[in-house]
Order: sequence, then C-alpha cells, then structure tokens
Amino acid sequence: MSHNTFGHLFRVTTFGESHGPALGCVVDGCPPGIELTEADIQPFLDKRRPGQSKYTTQRQEKDQVKILSGTFEGKTTGTSIGLLIENTDQRSKDYGEIKDKYRPGHADYTYDAKYGFRDYRGGGRSSARETAMRVAAGAVARKVLPPEIVIKGGLIRMGDKAVPDDVRDWDAVDNNPFFAPDTATAEEFAGYLDGIRKKGSSVGAVIEVIASGVPAGWGAPVYGKLDAELALAMMSINAVKGVEIGAGMDAAKLTGEENADEMRFDADGKPEFTSNNNGGVLGGISTGQDVVVRFSVKPTSSILTPRATIDKNGKETEIVTKGRHDPCVGIRAVPIGEAMMACVLADQFLRHRGQCG
Amino acid sequence: MSHNTFGHLFRVTTFGESHGPALGCVVDGCPPGIELTEADIQPFLDKRRPGQSKYTTQRQEKDQVKILSGTFEGKTTGTSIGLLIENTDQRSKDYGEIKDKYRPGHADYTYDAKYGFRDYRGGGRSSARETAMRVAAGAVARKVLPPEIVIKGGLIRMGDKAVPDDVRDWDAVDNNPFFAPDTATAEEFAGYLDGIRKKGSSVGAVIEVIASGVPAGWGAPVYGKLDAELALAMMSINAVKGVEIGAGMDAAKLTGEENADEMRFDADGKPEFTSNNNGGVLGGISTGQDVVVRFSVKPTSSILTPRATIDKNGKETEIVTKGRHDPCVGIRAVPIGEAMMACVLADQFLRHRGQCG
Amino acid sequence: MSHNTFGHLFRVTTFGESHGPALGCVVDGCPPGIELTEADIQPFLDKRRPGQSKYTTQRQEKDQVKILSGTFEGKTTGTSIGLLIENTDQRSKDYGEIKDKYRPGHADYTYDAKYGFRDYRGGGRSSARETAMRVAAGAVARKVLPPEIVIKGGLIRMGDKAVPDDVRDWDAVDNNPFFAPDTATAEEFAGYLDGIRKKGSSVGAVIEVIASGVPAGWGAPVYGKLDAELALAMMSINAVKGVEIGAGMDAAKLTGEENADEMRFDADGKPEFTSNNNGGVLGGISTGQDVVVRFSVKPTSSILTPRATIDKNGKETEIVTKGRHDPCVGIRAVPIGEAMMACVLADQFLRHRGQCG
Amino acid sequence: MSHNTFGHLFRVTTFGESHGPALGCVVDGCPPGIELTEADIQPFLDKRRPGQSKYTTQRQEKDQVKILSGTFEGKTTGTSIGLLIENTDQRSKDYGEIKDKYRPGHADYTYDAKYGFRDYRGGGRSSARETAMRVAAGAVARKVLPPEIVIKGGLIRMGDKAVPDDVRDWDAVDNNPFFAPDTATAEEFAGYLDGIRKKGSSVGAVIEVIASGVPAGWGAPVYGKLDAELALAMMSINAVKGVEIGAGMDAAKLTGEENADEMRFDADGKPEFTSNNNGGVLGGISTGQDVVVRFSVKPTSSILTPRATIDKNGKETEIVTKGRHDPCVGIRAVPIGEAMMACVLADQFLRHRGQCG
Repeated sequence: MSHNTFGHLFRVTTFGESHGPALGCVVDGCPPGIELTEADIQPFLDKRRPGQSKYTTQRQEKDQVKILSGTFEGKTTGTSIGLLIENTDQRSKDYGEIKDKYRPGHADYTYDAKYGFRDYRGGGRSSARETAMRVAAGAVARKVLPPEIVIKGGLIRMGDKAVPDDVRDWDAVDNNPFFAPDTATAEEFAGYLDGIRKKGSSVGAVIEVIASGVPAGWGAPVYGKLDAELALAMMSINAVKGVEIGAGMDAAKLTGEENADEMRFDADGKPEFTSNNNGGVLGGISTGQDVVVRFSVKPTSSILTPRATIDKNGKETEIVTKGRHDPCVGIRAVPIGEAMMACVLADQFLRHRGQCG
Repeated sequence: MSHNTFGHLFRVTTFGESHGPALGCVVDGCPPGIELTEADIQPFLDKRRPGQSKYTTQRQEKDQVKILSGTFEGKTTGTSIGLLIENTDQRSKDYGEIKDKYRPGHADYTYDAKYGFRDYRGGGRSSARETAMRVAAGAVARKVLPPEIVIKGGLIRMGDKAVPDDVRDWDAVDNNPFFAPDTATAEEFAGYLDGIRKKGSSVGAVIEVIASGVPAGWGAPVYGKLDAELALAMMSINAVKGVEIGAGMDAAKLTGEENADEMRFDADGKPEFTSNNNGGVLGGISTGQDVVVRFSVKPTSSILTPRATIDKNGKETEIVTKGRHDPCVGIRAVPIGEAMMACVLADQFLRHRGQCG
Repeated sequence: MSHNTFGHLFRVTTFGESHGPALGCVVDGCPPGIELTEADIQPFLDKRRPGQSKYTTQRQEKDQVKILSGTFEGKTTGTSIGLLIENTDQRSKDYGEIKDKYRPGHADYTYDAKYGFRDYRGGGRSSARETAMRVAAGAVARKVLPPEIVIKGGLIRMGDKAVPDDVRDWDAVDNNPFFAPDTATAEEFAGYLDGIRKKGSSVGAVIEVIASGVPAGWGAPVYGKLDAELALAMMSINAVKGVEIGAGMDAAKLTGEENADEMRFDADGKPEFTSNNNGGVLGGISTGQDVVVRFSVKPTSSILTPRATIDKNGKETEIVTKGRHDPCVGIRAVPIGEAMMACVLADQFLRHRGQCG
Repeated sequence: MSHNTFGHLFRVTTFGESHGPALGCVVDGCPPGIELTEADIQPFLDKRRPGQSKYTTQRQEKDQVKILSGTFEGKTTGTSIGLLIENTDQRSKDYGEIKDKYRPGHADYTYDAKYGFRDYRGGGRSSARETAMRVAAGAVARKVLPPEIVIKGGLIRMGDKAVPDDVRDWDAVDNNPFFAPDTATAEEFAGYLDGIRKKGSSVGAVIEVIASGVPAGWGAPVYGKLDAELALAMMSINAVKGVEIGAGMDAAKLTGEENADEMRFDADGKPEFTSNNNGGVLGGISTGQDVVVRFSVKPTSSILTPRATIDKNGKETEIVTKGRHDPCVGIRAVPIGEAMMACVLADQFLRHRGQCG
C-alpha cells in the first residue's frame, strides 16, 4: 500500500480533487472474464451521491462513471481497469476565507504543514469526493467475490440516537434517507437531524458493515490479518475516528466466559458458532460467520457557528464555514464502508487463492 | 505490507513460533549511523516478558535478544538488522486435547480451515510470543525517531474498572503491575483481577498509547493516513478488537461544535489547539499535538470453565484450557502497542523525509 | 511493484489499450511544490509519437496529455497526479485474421493462455501505446530530479549497423530520425532501414541511455540495487530482450585488471574513476560517474512475409501482418528508455533521502 | 520489493554479513503442506559452497542451514519460514588496508558515499555470502513449483572460452568444477583458469539458466512481466552486469523473419514453436517453451596486480587485494542464478493462481 493505492493483489489507485476536471482510479489485478459494464458500478455511485435528500449536501454531482480500459466485449480482460468520473459542479466561488484560514477539524493546517501549501478549493485531495472512486472500485470488487457473499451496511448511530443492538432490519436500509436498518429509528433520526441541520450544526455517526457468506480461511496471521486490513480500510475513510470488529471496544468489558464464541454443528453438520463476539475473524482469519465491522464518523467541521482559528499569516481569527455541507457525513459513509469491505475481501480472496490454491 | 511484514521504508518482517527453536525479525530500511546495541532493545523486551507478577502467565522466557547483523562498532550500517530470540521454556507437555479440539476464541479452527492443518503447539504462529519481535523492532524504531518524540502507553480499562478520562499519571505506569497511569485505579485493578484469576477466568482491557513531540506534517492523505496505519498496526496485535484515534467511537456522539478542535497561538507564537478530539491527526496527517490511540484487547479464551466446542473429527465436545495463561493479556499488550506506535511513526518519518525532503 | 505499477516512493500506475477511449497513468509520491504543466510533458510525448518520419508507423496519434489532478496553480501538490491521453486514431478495421490467429512473436498466444481470451484490437494492453504513459511519467520524474542530472538516449545499433563504441555525439541525436548519436551512422541507418522497410521486413536495435550528474550514493545493496531496478525497468519495455550496465555482457570477457575502474582525484579534489566498466554502479549504488544502460529491442513481428502459425481453433495456418507498423520499433524506444531511467532515478532519489536524510 | 526483500506473494527477506555471527532469511507466503526439511535445502548450499576445488576461494564455510520456523512435522505450515546459517570461518585478520582504501570494482566507495561509513570486514553486506540465503530460499521455491518444472544452470562462457551455442549437455554440469554443460569446454576452462589463477588474476563469465516445464500463461503484461522480474532477479546478484532473455542483445541483429518463432502443433496436438528466440516469454507471459536466461558476471576485483585507488583520507594510493578469492566468481553464480529463477517462478506461479484461479 502506498499513499494513493490500496490493496495487494486486488489493488486500487485513486487520483483527483473535487475542483479539478475529473476523478479517477485504476483497479489492478482483477481476474479476467468477469462481466463488467458501467451499469454494474453506477448504482453504487448513485447511492453515495449527494443531493438526494435534505439530509445531505445540496451539491449536485452526477458522478457518471466511464470505464476507460480493462474490459472487452463486456468482460474484464485481467489488465488494469481505468475508471473516470468528470467533475461537473465546480461552482466558482470565493475561497477567500478558506484560502488563508485553517478550518478547525479540517486538513487545511496539516496539508500546509506537510506540503508547504495546498489546493484549498473544496479541500483538494482531502475532499470526500475521493470516496466516489472507492465506491466505484468497490463495485468491481463485489463482482470479483463469489456470489454468495453479500455485503450490507447501515447507519446505526447518529449522535445519541441509535438503532438497538438487537435490531438489524437490512430490508429497511434502502427505504429511509439514512440507510438505517430500522424504520422506527430512522424516524427518530429524521427529527433529530432536522434540528441539527436547522441550527447549521452537524453530528457524528456509527456505521456497521456486515459481510455474510465469507468462507472460513480468508486472511492471514500476523500483519496480513483480515481484521487489521479492515481497520486500515475503514480508518482511511475521511472523518473516521474508530473501528471495531465484533465486540469491538466493549470486548474490554467482557470476561473470557462471555467472550468465547462456542462451537457446535448445525443441522447440516457444518461447524457453527453460538455467538459472534469475534466479528467473524479469529487470529486474523475468517471463521465463516458474518464479518462485522463498525466505524465512527466524526461530525463535519463545516458548521455555521463561528470557531476560533488562526490564519497562515500568523493571526488569530474565527471562521464560519458556509456552503453546501452535510449535517451528518456519516450517512454517505455507508456505501463507502461497504465498498472498502468489498475491496478488502476481494484482495484477501485472491491472496488466499494464490497461497493456498 | 505482506503476511509477515509491516511497514514500507522502515520495514519489519517476523518469523517464529512459541515452540520452535527461536523467534526472529528483520528490520529493513533503518538509517545508518544510529547507535544500537542489545542494551537498547532488552529493556523493552523485559517489560513485555511474562512471569513478572502474579497477574501474567507464569511461563518463564528470558527473551534474550541477539543482534545478528546490520550494526558495526555499535552503529547501524543502513543494511538489514537481524534480531533473534531463542526459545528456552518449551515445556514438553501433552497437547492431546488442543491437538484435536478447537479452543473457542482461539485461531485453531481458522488455521485448520485455511491451511488444512496447524502447528498446535502453543498456538503456533498465533502465539503472543510473536509480539516479542514487535517489541524488539519497536525499540529500534524509537532510536530512528527524533529524540523529542516520547511514546507512553498505559492500561486504562480492565473489565468495568477504568482510569478516569481526566487522569493520566504517566509516572505511575512503571510503578504498578498493570501499567496503569493512575495509582488509585491500579489498586482497584489489583483486587478485581485477583478475583478473576482465582476463578480461572479472564478479562479484557483497553490500552492507550500516546506519542508526544511528533511534528505537524507526518502522514499522508487517502490510503497512507497516519491514523489508518495506526489502526492497521494495533488491530494486527493478537486479540485486539477495536482501535480508536482521539475521540474514537464516541466521535459519533459529538456535534460539530463540540468536536472541532479550535486553534490559537501559544506564548511562543506556535500554533496550538484548544482540544484534541482528533487525536493529533487531521486528514491523515499529524497536527503537532499528541498522537492518541486506544485499542481494546479481548479476554484470553484460555479459561478454566468448560466451553462447548467441536473437534476436527466432527464431534461436539467441550474443552477446558489449562496451562499458564494471563488472566488479562491486555497488560502485556501495553509495550506491544508502544512498539507498534514507534514502528508506524518511524516509517512515516522516513517516507515524509523521502517525499518532502 | 505490481502488474501495472512501477516504483516504490515515486510510483507510476498505468492503464489503457490502444483501441479503448484513452490511456492514463497515476504518478504517486511526487514531491510538492514542483512546477509542472502539460508543457513539461508534451515535448517528450511528441518525441515518442509515431508518424514523424517514414521510418516509424504512419498511425497518427496526437498524444495530447492532460493533467487531471495533483497540481495547483502550476505546481505539484504532493498528491497523486492523474494524466490522460485520449485515443483519436482508432481506425476501424477488420481484425478477422488477428482475432483467431496467433501472430508469431506477439503476445496473442500467451494472453489467451493466461486469461482465456484477449482484446485483440491493436494488441490490447501489450500495444506499444502503453509506453506513452511511461514517457509522460518520465517527464514528471525528470522534474523531480536535481537539475544537474541529464538523461540522454540514443539508438546505437540497428541490425548489423552500429555507432562505433568510441563515438557518442549526443548533439546529433535530435538531428536524425533514428536518435543516433552520430550523423555518419545515421546516414548508414537510413539506407539500411529503407531496404528493410521496402521489403516489408523489420529489424532489431540497441538503445543506450546515459544519466550524468547522478551523485554517488543512490541505490541500495542486495535487492534494491540501482542497476537491478534499471534492468527491471528496461526489460519491462515491450520487445526488449537484453539489458546491460556498463561493460554488460562483455564483462564476461574481461580480466580483473581490465575491468577494475581505478580511482584518482580530479583537479578539484573530487574522486574520479579512470574508466567506467561498471556503468556508474558498484554494489548496486551509484558511483557519481555516468549511469550507463543499454538494451536490445527485437524486430517487430508484424512483417509482410507470411509466417507459419496456428489459430485458436486448433488449425495450422499462416499469417501476414499488414498494417501501419514500424520497421524498427527500437527507434521509438529511445524516449521510452530515457523515461524509465528518469523514473528509476527519481524513485531511488526519494528512497535515499528517506533513509539517509 | 524493498532493499532486502525479493518477491511479492512468495517473498524472501535476507540479512547478515560475512563477518557477523550469522546469515538468515525469512521466506514468506509459502503454501502450506509442502514437505520441507533441512535436507531439501542443504544440497543446493553445498553446491554453492566455496572451497570445493582449486578454482574457488579456499575459505571454508560449512553453510549448515537450520529451519527455525514455518514447518511442523516436516511440512510447511503456510507461515513465515526462518532460515539461519551460522558463520564459522570468520578468520581474524588485519583489515588495515581495506579499512581505509577503496578497492576498485568493489562497493567500498559507494557504501561510504551512501551511508557515511561501512562495515569493511569481508565486504559487509555486499559480500557474496548473502547469496547463500538466496540459494536456501531458492530450494524452498523449487518445492513450491509443480514437479514438472526443472531448472538447470551452467557456465557457458569464461573470458574468451565458451560452450558452443548448439551444445548444452546438462548431464555434464555436475561432472566438472565449472558447472559447464559440455565436458570438452570444461577441459578448456580448466587450463585457461589455471593460468588466470596462477597470475593472481580473475576473469568474467556468462551463466545460462533454463526452466523447462513452465506452463504457458505465467507472468503479466507491463511491469510484472516474467522476463522483467528475471532481469531484476539476476541483476541483483553480486557482480552481474548484463541479463538476456532468449536471443538477448543479439535480438538487435535479427530481422523480423529471423526472429519470429513460428507455431505448429506437435504430435499430441499441443502448440509448439519451431524456435525459441523469445526465450519462452512473449509479452511478459510464459509461452510453455523453456524459459532461457543468461547473465554475465564480471571478474572479481580482488587481484594481485596493484591497482590505483584513493583512500578515505583524500590520498591517492594503490592496492593489492590479497586473500582467499575466486579467480572466477561466475562459477559459484550458477546455483545462485538457478535459485533466483526458482524464486521468480514460484512468485509468478502464486500470483497467477491468485488472479486467474
């Protein structure tokens, strides 16, 4: 993995800023002969696309993906797949404030510290638009995976409202603007976020992503652990501050008796576990249970309340970040988390096949 | 990063099982001219070493490290550093039960699923002994880092006992057997863990690792984020189930106003932040604040209470894991977490210097 | 390095086929603050571009490069640089023969063997058009290198005509259609290649690439040797069958006395060598002398004389490859070799700076 | 690939100097369940071992390999394999001259230029002893490869004596001290090298390595080409200055008609080629023919004739390198070249299986 590349055998390299001409990515290592057209990718981009409800930014980006290479007659050739999305809504505006002032909670200050200057238009490379290419690559990854693997994601917490632990109605996810796996909680979210939005504030979220159908045996001990790579993948998403597998941080509160997932055989004589505290991963290798990952997304720092900051000329000042921002960026992180899950699994699948045949 | 390699420019590759003749690692990419002898490494290994109090396993391993290459006249040469620890306490015993039964919560089942068989002696490669080499490599990494960088780790939660959020007495860490950054809580831990230990049970923990003195500008946007690599590093430690940066999972509960770390100049005219919800990382790049990571360690699954399981011959059974186990493996994870922090920082330091001069 | 990525800290990932909509590449790891616009890249592409004399293919590709990301106000930002060239001359034609028959000397058979099928239009990914992106990336690499480093390439052999060993007139290179570093030999080449071309035949070539101004100390022992990476780089160019450093294959014919490059101090007290059999590299590390690489390019297999072959339906047959082909593809390999030299040096430069400061 | 690591899925990381306590390597990514004991590795080390005839250095190193990890009950477990060879013949001697003077043709000057100082004992990391670990890793790689793949190497040129192009008597290789694939030429070599040796001189060599039984389809287009990785592998061996695949540098002298390897079906209906100018690789992918690589090894620079040089204190001087050196280091490069071929093929095999199933 390098600065802009993710993965090993299934590798994704992205480029592009929100205010340049285009975003793109290269998917390398995809097996040959897989049916792939733009129609396999576009629905996932549409799901991530902003401006679909009042709860996400009102910027309008069509996010129309083009496959530039790597397919022939509708099938992957085994060579590198180039994907491109042209930027269409680069609304010309006055960047005056952002140009010199460091927005608290944004990467403005750290970019300047690292590189000596920065592309301040729309956050440059730290813009959430980069994640469009993750979603596109994730759509390719899904096609690489065996069809029995199903990846589902949902927003399970927003501020202090949360989907109860024992409720996961995955069918509900596509029927509310929050991707919440529970209709009742979605209604709570609606009222809650309306309040946040009207105040010009923002709020954080927790996303859960589950992959079912993953066979036992994917992953590796030590540094190539399946869960370690999921942690890398999720923490690499903008604004993510925590990643959990299975029982997660609360594993610290459990005793050995509570935590140990006991084993039995199911009716078909297949091994099964009576619980899934381990989130489908033991010793870095999949158990055959659902792989369960959660991650937190911090509230966007673009809010209407003025915050104290400094500018690059050495003056203390304050800033209000106007513009078309998401009151809860966590919502749009749902398809991104699903995409990263798909990329990690596709990579581990190919590596497992390489080593173990 | 490969299965047994961690890092990019500063790279660590480990090998060895608990019941083989030795453990070892290769540290590649270390800058030349750094003073390094075994005496720089041994104290960290001694800290991780088991058998030092009644709260850790009574196995006795001297963990005596030897430098096999890469130094000359007490200085690193810039070539690969080979480190070796011979195993001395390979108590011969009857592995009969473990050999055929899958211990719940261990990697037994997943190793068999992946590789078709496994080295069942002492957990093979999934043994915590692998982490001795992480600690050794981390000691080298610390020497690579500028001296103003100080890395401190502590155990801040054990089961439902926790060091209060506003208490971090780092001087206390070396004065209690739990590496707790608070003497009062350490006393609570003592009684609590005595109870756990006597029941033959075990309990989870949360470890916090802080690096102070890291300059602003280390890390990279997108996939090479400093926090993403810390997540990979910590989640790759045995038994870790969650990783947090700064506000961590609780970032989900914050509003934008609460979360935004405001900026001011300190008395010397240096930028400072009025809070550190971001844990010293914004947009994947260090801010100059303390880098703050926490991770949870699940309770060891080796407990005296019988648990239901299956064996590899297709029979349902139960298992009791006797032996010399840690009632709270999280304790010994403290120096390991510090070592992984050091390795990630050393790697990011060299990469930053490579790209930005 | 992966299938479609070259380099470590300075990394190039390419995609695109000759008959798809576009070619592209991502240049990752470029230092920030370097002046870079399309005008820095285009001249090198123009040099590689076909159709400029009767000695290269008459296909017309404008090879107009666009920078899609990674620069701001004319300078690199330190983030990934996306480059794109749209394909304009995708002459629709009948691929009937090529579709089913394996052209001897081409990758047709091996692609089918590997992937089960292939994009037969214009050679797909094995088309020399891929090298346009190497040239573009090489232009970026040149800007990363210190200005005292000058990279020059020339065609020094074509069939049995060769530039004498003691003649290297680098000023002549741009004044003849063969990039020959000798005007007299260029005239020989002209008559010779006219004959080849009129017969519908083709011929091989040797290219020499020299980098002067490289400081002593770049490279690494063992697997990261400067010369080993140059060998990888040059052998990865289409149709290359041999790579030499310094004395090259003829080093086998030398005695120790003849081969040893003796050392003295020059008038300024700087170390100098009295010869350069080692081609500027000792133990994998640059000596401060010119880095000298040569590589052979086989004759293109697209010739008018029928050759025996088989088709994918199991029949023996023969094939004549008509079309707009280069009688000596080695000519256009000159700027490609220069580009690969630049990429290897830029990567080693950044890695050296990373490790040694 | 990093400084001391070779390969991608099948990865070899080495450490150790000739005058330290031991050499070692870690072989990562080996498939599980392969029978492997020291007895599978030792014969290849014995073949490379010096002191076996008057034509190689009289240093005595037993090169006894120990497997430290990664096997269980005689089979690979799929985890990292640690290999160790202890140094036994570290004859204490006066390094006075070598310590300060730069031996022409050695890496002394470049190490100092890069690292600021060097381990001058026995060449430090640039010692040919590093190659013992390549040979050990190559022995593991051979076991990973399907049994029908046979790797043979021979010395085909020494100075101006050469095995005729049309003679390759592989059975002769083990019956002469030069690994020459021709008994008659071996006799010529004997007299020739006796003369060289008695003069205290040295001479270069060309080694040819052939892999038969490689199926069509291994390798990849563009940067992961099978032949490009062979070039990297061979050029990374000490003292190698040129690498050729198939027709090699002489491909430049051929016409398209001569070069094109025509195709037919053999008696069993399998595709076959009527010649092998391409050395078993087309477009970076194996054709199913023999994979044919040649590389040149320069004469060792340790000779008895004084050569002009400088010392690190800025003085011009001369040097005679006494000691126990090989008059033709190319001889011992034969098993090393075979080992690198095995490593490249094992890595490509696993990567091919990963991507294409």
